[in-house]
Amino acid sequence: MGYMIDRLKEDLVETSQFGRTPPKKIERYDKLDPENGVTRPTGSEGNKRIRDYAVARMKEAGLQVNVDKLGNIFGRKEGSKTTRGSVMSGSHLDSVINGGMFDGALGVFSSIEAVRRMNDDGFDNDRPIEVVVFTGEEGSAFSPTLLASSVLAGKLSIDKALSRKNAMGQTLEEALENIGYNGSFEKSLDDIEYFVEMHIEQGPILDKEGMSIGIVDSISGVAWIMATILGEGNHAGTTPMRVRKDALVAASEIVSFINKRANEMVEKLGASTVGTVGKLNVFPNGTNIVPGRVEMGIDIRDVIPENMERLKDETLKVMKEIERKYGVDIHTELAPMHSPVTLSDEVIDVIGSSAKQVGVMAKRMISGAVQDCQNMAEKVKAGMIFVPSVNGISHAPLEWTSWEDIRKGAEVLTQTLKNLSRL
Amino acid sequence: MGYMIDRLKEDLVETSQFGRTPPKKIERYDKLDPENGVTRPTGSEGNKRIRDYAVARMKEAGLQVNVDKLGNIFGRKEGSKTTRGSVMSGSHLDSVINGGMFDGALGVFSSIEAVRRMNDDGFDNDRPIEVVVFTGEEGSAFSPTLLASSVLAGKLSIDKALSRKNAMGQTLEEALENIGYNGSFEKSLDDIEYFVEMHIEQGPILDKEGMSIGIVDSISGVAWIMATILGEGNHAGTTPMRVRKDALVAASEIVSFINKRANEMVEKLGASTVGTVGKLNVFPNGTNIVPGRVEMGIDIRDVIPENMERLKDETLKVMKEIERKYGVDIHTELAPMHSPVTLSDEVIDVIGSSAKQVGVMAKRMISGAVQDCQNMAEKVKAGMIFVPSVNGISHAPLEWTSWEDIRKGAEVLTQTLKNLSRL
Repeated sequence: MGYMIDRLKEDLVETSQFGRTPPKKIERYDKLDPENGVTRPTGSEGNKRIRDYAVARMKEAGLQVNVDKLGNIFGRKEGSKTTRGSVMSGSHLDSVINGGMFDGALGVFSSIEAVRRMNDDGFDNDRPIEVVVFTGEEGSAFSPTLLASSVLAGKLSIDKALSRKNAMGQTLEEALENIGYNGSFEKSLDDIEYFVEMHIEQGPILDKEGMSIGIVDSISGVAWIMATILGEGNHAGTTPMRVRKDALVAASEIVSFINKRANEMVEKLGASTVGTVGKLNVFPNGTNIVPGRVEMGIDIRDVIPENMERLKDETLKVMKEIERKYGVDIHTELAPMHSPVTLSDEVIDVIGSSAKQVGVMAKRMISGAVQDCQNMAEKVKAGMIFVPSVNGISHAPLEWTSWEDIRKGAEVLTQTLKNLSRL
Repeated sequence: MGYMIDRLKEDLVETSQFGRTPPKKIERYDKLDPENGVTRPTGSEGNKRIRDYAVARMKEAGLQVNVDKLGNIFGRKEGSKTTRGSVMSGSHLDSVINGGMFDGALGVFSSIEAVRRMNDDGFDNDRPIEVVVFTGEEGSAFSPTLLASSVLAGKLSIDKALSRKNAMGQTLEEALENIGYNGSFEKSLDDIEYFVEMHIEQGPILDKEGMSIGIVDSISGVAWIMATILGEGNHAGTTPMRVRKDALVAASEIVSFINKRANEMVEKLGASTVGTVGKLNVFPNGTNIVPGRVEMGIDIRDVIPENMERLKDETLKVMKEIERKYGVDIHTELAPMHSPVTLSDEVIDVIGSSAKQVGVMAKRMISGAVQDCQNMAEKVKAGMIFVPSVNGISHAPLEWTSWEDIRKGAEVLTQTLKNLSRL
């Protein structure tokens, strides 16, 4: 089976130079430069180059390539029974700023490799196979994240998506035109039956447990609370403790609460809850000034909607108590949230049996990261295959997955697509 | 007594335009612009203009003006018994960036007014009177704070002070030359017996209690701890709670400890301790990323050295526990600290009896803010007179003291200088 991983590895190594400054192809973990990752936001030069590369490989594999109005790329292999709904597989080719070489790209090129393998094997798929590249998964140029899949799932209008602007004031429509990926048709998911995405885990679980393959059964929902705490900025030397309204003291109690409560929910309820204050800015931020204002960004996730709601509601309630306790005002804004998603039992079963067929151990798990698959699961039967992230690292230059794990993932994906296409 | 406050008010209103952009003279609280304070760092145009103004008033009052190598200005009124040590009084004319019109200037112009009053009254001072303007109290252009008084107190060499650089890379020596305040002699405190500084409180106590005059009996020491907490930056969605090393969770526990413990020391021990985390920066500071690093600036003050040491030591000890509890590394740096200072009982008594003489109620209190007087107290018998800061505000455009309180302060200062000059 050497040629399979060799071809896939070539695609990933070749494309690892795109969006990297200076460009450098990376084949081994110890050649990664922690300062120099890939930057391929939608519409960038690096994003165009990796798209062009993928389209060329799709065409070589005999796929019929189409680009829709959102710049999504579809590579279609007709099936022998075209009346049945298609099996779609893919991921995204945009990246975060200074990110890693596998996030997204792995899922796209593994899907193309699966088609090449079907060609080699002379495999006749009953259902059509469609390899997909979603535009703007990361939201690094055009917010929100999961941009194109949100349109496909009917959660965002195509016009709104196309008029989103990047930091240079360019619209998505202009950016796509600029790189030559402004197609003319609007894609519908009506004739899609199954969707499978292979992706790096972006967490430490598979790596810590020494497992090569994860079968995702649910994807965490995400709730964001953006909070502003207004206290009273004052001289740290002359303002007695009892008259203070210290915004950072109030904020710290919120940070501690969220951490303590999320830990409790995991330990006592066996929940998969995570709660994080990732962002916190202090004003005026001078060592000798009692903080007058703190802005904080809170991230709460769980695969069970009730757990997510519970931690969110408890946090908001604790904020009310903290307002009274410290005499501060707390303003909160709830950012639009992603709901947790349960993936298709049918697809999960097929991935599991496919893994057995190719002799690879797999572990059922959840995805804590947001995925395009989350949107697809609202419209079609969807599943996800995870491969390990070394040290749990992703969205950073040191993101890595071993070639052996990638080989196993690609084999499971290929077998899964074969099996689904005959259902 | 109208003319006394009228003259002093004219000086303060006239100089309130210097360093303000656009320039504007302010006579009433409701004319203050919260966005437009005074900016007079050492060596700036505004700093030169208020110095020139003060020198002109000193000369009009018959004072013999000298400028030393550090740009300190001394205005001397000879006494009838010149063999006795001088009585020095004054403050500073530099300001923080976007500060208030009274911080420093009040003490300088009140001292000049005291001399004018002695002239009007035909008062014969036995000891010489010296009005002083200290260079670089705020440290807003050249660090550290209390620059010139630190040299006078023998804690910093004159060469080191003169070679300090501002943000433009200009040395203090060059900055002083630029504004024409580079004198040629080195001042010694050997012939100074007493020092008195009148200053705004910069805290809320007098204002809250409706008192016009504070007699400072001690000045808080200041200990700074600069801490860096190293955890592990990770994806907020995919990193389970139990494997996290969240630097902000660790930092929050430190913030809470310092606040709780300082409050306890005040409540249980009757201490005047204050403990503040005024500065806190989170890295990478993304809502969906577990914080990998936090930098924090901690400010601890008390007038009793043991209390300050206690809170400092307990904080360092708690940091060790937090390192173990959260698996983080904490690096600390102790910034050079100011020791607490007890002011002269003799001067305190004279201020107290002078207040009685002019019929003004006064309250014994501490200074939580650092003052040039702190350095002077190490070499001569020193005292401080406080007037209220409306709402406790200072170092900000809304800094204010009522003209009535300023009148009372100037009368107490004048009587104090008269009385000290005859001891």
